[in-house]
Amino acid sequence: MGEKDHSDKQLAGDGGLSFVPLASIEVVRGATDDPIVRAGLLADVCRLNTLYMIMQAGSGHIGSSFSSTDLVTWLWTEELADPNSGAANADTYFSSKGHDAPALYSLLIALGKLDFDLLHRLRRLGGLPGHPDVDTTPFIATNTGSLGMGISKAYGMARARRLAGRTGRIVLMTGDGELQEGQIWESLQPVANERLSEIIAVVDHNKLQSDSAVSAVSDLGRIEDKFRAFGWDVRRVDGHDFRAIHDAFSHFATVADRPKVLIADTIKGKGVSFMEGLAGGDETYHFHAGAPSLKDYLAAVAELTSRTNERLSRLGQPPLTLASGPLPVRIAPVNPERLVLAYGDELLRMARSRPEIVVLDADLVSDCGIEAFKEELPDRFIECGIAEQHMVSAAGGMALNGLLPVVHSFACFLSTRANEHIYNNATERRKIIYTATLAGLVPGGPGHSHQSLRDISAIGSVPGLTAIEPCSEREARLAIRWAVEENPASTYLRFVNVPLDLPYALPSSYTMQIGRGVTLREGTDVALVGYGPLMMTNAWRAANQLAAQGVSAAVINLPWLNRIDEAWVVQTFTRFPAVVTLDNHYVTLGQGVMIAAALSRAGVRAETRSLGVTDVPACGSNAEVLAHHGLDAASIARVCKAPLSAPRTTLA
Amino acid sequence: MGEKDHSDKQLAGDGGLSFVPLASIEVVRGATDDPIVRAGLLADVCRLNTLYMIMQAGSGHIGSSFSSTDLVTWLWTEELADPNSGAANADTYFSSKGHDAPALYSLLIALGKLDFDLLHRLRRLGGLPGHPDVDTTPFIATNTGSLGMGISKAYGMARARRLAGRTGRIVLMTGDGELQEGQIWESLQPVANERLSEIIAVVDHNKLQSDSAVSAVSDLGRIEDKFRAFGWDVRRVDGHDFRAIHDAFSHFATVADRPKVLIADTIKGKGVSFMEGLAGGDETYHFHAGAPSLKDYLAAVAELTSRTNERLSRLGQPPLTLASGPLPVRIAPVNPERLVLAYGDELLRMARSRPEIVVLDADLVSDCGIEAFKEELPDRFIECGIAEQHMVSAAGGMALNGLLPVVHSFACFLSTRANEHIYNNATERRKIIYTATLAGLVPGGPGHSHQSLRDISAIGSVPGLTAIEPCSEREARLAIRWAVEENPASTYLRFVNVPLDLPYALPSSYTMQIGRGVTLREGTDVALVGYGPLMMTNAWRAANQLAAQGVSAAVINLPWLNRIDEAWVVQTFTRFPAVVTLDNHYVTLGQGVMIAAALSRAGVRAETRSLGVTDVPACGSNAEVLAHHGLDAASIARVCKAPLSAPRTTLA
Repeated sequence: MGEKDHSDKQLAGDGGLSFVPLASIEVVRGATDDPIVRAGLLADVCRLNTLYMIMQAGSGHIGSSFSSTDLVTWLWTEELADPNSGAANADTYFSSKGHDAPALYSLLIALGKLDFDLLHRLRRLGGLPGHPDVDTTPFIATNTGSLGMGISKAYGMARARRLAGRTGRIVLMTGDGELQEGQIWESLQPVANERLSEIIAVVDHNKLQSDSAVSAVSDLGRIEDKFRAFGWDVRRVDGHDFRAIHDAFSHFATVADRPKVLIADTIKGKGVSFMEGLAGGDETYHFHAGAPSLKDYLAAVAELTSRTNERLSRLGQPPLTLASGPLPVRIAPVNPERLVLAYGDELLRMARSRPEIVVLDADLVSDCGIEAFKEELPDRFIECGIAEQHMVSAAGGMALNGLLPVVHSFACFLSTRANEHIYNNATERRKIIYTATLAGLVPGGPGHSHQSLRDISAIGSVPGLTAIEPCSEREARLAIRWAVEENPASTYLRFVNVPLDLPYALPSSYTMQIGRGVTLREGTDVALVGYGPLMMTNAWRAANQLAAQGVSAAVINLPWLNRIDEAWVVQTFTRFPAVVTLDNHYVTLGQGVMIAAALSRAGVRAETRSLGVTDVPACGSNAEVLAHHGLDAASIARVCKAPLSAPRTTLA
Repeated sequence: MGEKDHSDKQLAGDGGLSFVPLASIEVVRGATDDPIVRAGLLADVCRLNTLYMIMQAGSGHIGSSFSSTDLVTWLWTEELADPNSGAANADTYFSSKGHDAPALYSLLIALGKLDFDLLHRLRRLGGLPGHPDVDTTPFIATNTGSLGMGISKAYGMARARRLAGRTGRIVLMTGDGELQEGQIWESLQPVANERLSEIIAVVDHNKLQSDSAVSAVSDLGRIEDKFRAFGWDVRRVDGHDFRAIHDAFSHFATVADRPKVLIADTIKGKGVSFMEGLAGGDETYHFHAGAPSLKDYLAAVAELTSRTNERLSRLGQPPLTLASGPLPVRIAPVNPERLVLAYGDELLRMARSRPEIVVLDADLVSDCGIEAFKEELPDRFIECGIAEQHMVSAAGGMALNGLLPVVHSFACFLSTRANEHIYNNATERRKIIYTATLAGLVPGGPGHSHQSLRDISAIGSVPGLTAIEPCSEREARLAIRWAVEENPASTYLRFVNVPLDLPYALPSSYTMQIGRGVTLREGTDVALVGYGPLMMTNAWRAANQLAAQGVSAAVINLPWLNRIDEAWVVQTFTRFPAVVTLDNHYVTLGQGVMIAAALSRAGVRAETRSLGVTDVPACGSNAEVLAHHGLDAASIARVCKAPLSAPRTTLA
């Protein structure tokens, strides 16, 4: 247990974390017949349990959960008919932004619709996923987490329900930053043209996206005019005023010829004074995605509990009974490498003497290692907001006009949302660098919308685009330097964001040579080959386990994801009786299939086996999902001991 | 020469096709000092040469070229300063829709900016590509052809020019159907927020998209209000009224705080009476994308020539001197298979007894084989317009509500524009069928925006999604039946649209078995394995050539693009000393790499070589591009005679 854990333990006292158990929630729900007072009480109780879930999980979106809690509570308890029950004419509700899931989970638990024990299992395998998932969680209407899809999904639901002769409203929540996504506007017109008046969009207009003001990232302009111009009925209310929400929905019930949108002015982090909006006084919001510090957590619990108890007292009711859960123990890496920060630092160093370098970002500046660049070279930092298609095409326009654009987002979004745009740029043969972070299976907490396991496949065939995943801070620096200084064409840089203690080091003489890898650990019985810090670390640990059992495994790093030098393949693998490829990616079209093909083409006769993900990725702790998908050290070691070449029916 | 060619020859007389040579154009350009009369004359001369180019090419977009000809002519000759010259403060012009390229080419040729000989080489290798390409054509500012990217590109150009201290306007043309693309709206706000007043968008509002009214496909609603709500200055004019265009640009020059849009009301096919709008009296526009009949061509030439000569006569000038080019000779297939029509027919048959089947389309009904479905089952036909992201997410909403959506577009757009949306649907594990047409290298005329050579790679890793390309009408029917009746999960069906005479037939006992192929032609020296009518036909022809040289080549059809049964691989390929895989796709992550990997994993020791595309696809006739990329019969045969296994430096 580290020093921080120790002081946390003292701070929390013996009780650890607190949650409101079902019995106490039921007292609160019965405390008054006034629906407005009741909803306010229930919303704060849900906030307490949302905080608990996020502390347990170690991550989750507090700000967005809290800004939407009042709306969700009112809708589910007072407005919607039998929501998401599956009954023929029930109303449907879902969140298009999806990262407010903890608020909805907390409410569904409070209403007895989800097992109470799930409160303890946010972002754990078999628990509640970081973003909504229809497959694992009752009362979830659709999978979200990538932004902008909600109105289109609602359109499909409405058309299907009309075909089946079913009624019922479809109410969906969007973020305000989410309105930067083009698909929102693409979907508004068809819904209006079909006069799908059963669709009601609620915009949780909390004015902050990730950690900055929406207006600073990409101002939304005249938001009500925009919706009206697209043919929607518009109402705007205080999203924490239950009566105003009620009145808006009463108005919507009178409009039968068009879809409706409620612009709900809300406060990010609503309900805890120091988490509300930019309460800290600076320009950065501090409670977007991570768990708060224990100190902040305890202060928030105190504030929410005190307010709730005062209200209960005024109603002549007993105070909340809080139960306690243990403080989660997390093993932090001792001396972790942070590849993305090293990358960003090296990029900035080069940019100082290369005025052609410009950086583009899609609202993920801190996750892409480019905060220092933004600070030091603001004129060459272009914040595009949540608008990946626009960003990538804009980069194309810049490259045609003499700049070297370096384009940033999460791998899951950059490689797929802007997929055609990356190709279009490639046909112009100008040089662009795409930097894709949060790649691979972990962190496992956000779930499948954020686990990028298809990006090698999605962009690997773009002509002239070379894809690389570095395995260490040093290789991260070499890779961006190679992309800027040596590669005449475009590069896709893929990064794992999870900080890891690395058991290996690159040889001091190592330089990057296209298509050629490097042996990190010698061995004779089997070669483990792959890329990136996650696979190389687990390969190394597997090699340790195998060594204890008398099997000598080599670990070989091949950072080139879609370029393989067949001469190197011959030279490296001919001496091994067996080769196991490791993909932090789907096995179907990852690096492994290319290595296996290269072995075949080069006439190398080793037995080969390719490991990687084969199904929708599971949500859970990092250790859980690695084991679940057979990519932890133990699973890798197990495969190396079995016969490799038994033919399988289908390549999944 | 077929019967049609013969009667065409009679109709055309000895002269063949007509064009206006440079000398005559120069007379026209000097005929008057009145800029408005001059522009009208030049525009009609350009229309004559545009028609010639499209007749020579056998395809090209007349309607959209003609609706924009007046605008483009005025802009380039009277409004813009030194457009696209590369000079520091020159104005920039490009078309975001791109398929009006013949109009611009025709003008650039008339202005002497392009070699006059290129007039004879539209859509030919080394000539003028079907959609704009910066690499091959001077005075082209950016590559377009996929819709919606133009305003983002202009944003990037403007930001780059400002950074370099350069001035100059950026004028771009969009279609009106193009406004259905979400990226248009995604890009409007950043341009307004940055006050990029040098950007002027011109909407060629001809009211027709592909072959239907925009209002019937997906009505645009209050188009001026929309742009204003996004912060743009808006003017609306008759797009064939040069004075009004001039006045609008004069107004724009006074607006310095925001970008501008000119809504230009135009007539599709403007300039030839019977090609204008829905002049035919039905609801279908007949001159969108193909070459007209020779009869229509001659009538159009007569009308344009007569009007121009009357005007010249009033100015006291001599009439046009027309030169003649030969009628192109095209060898039509004798008894071609049309896979997409067979597919559509089989889908409709099943839909009659399966009410859960609904069809979604993105403005490509006739190219996707679903006209009969639309006609017979209109309530279950959902036209989404040019809105692929919306369409795919809408299909997700439908699948969650009990329907079986069958989603249609061109492969190049469906697999890449909606790439993340297909994945998001996959995570919901509901069954959806994606039908992607116009796949592969041919037709070679439209160029790289339409040649889908990345779709196996782009969607091949989507969990649970099985990709298939049928090789004949019979296999097309089997494939959609398998997708509907047998596959419990989702399917991606890939189709070549070019009608082909097939030299092979599937065995009468053939049924589709996942991951397993079928031998179309026996052989002993080398196995040619691939998929689809194009590769199988060329493999067959290569086998004929090889047979004449004493090499016995087998031809093996494997329609499964991302599923390979390794037992079948062992059973099929063990007896061959050499295996050559054929991809109508990039070689990097196509079927070939999976077959080669399967050979390695299954321990089959054949020499292997994978053929496929390795660079940005060339534009040209089908025969030209197949030869250029080494996928015609002669190239395949050549590879089979060479040693296969020489290691190569990098896998491109």
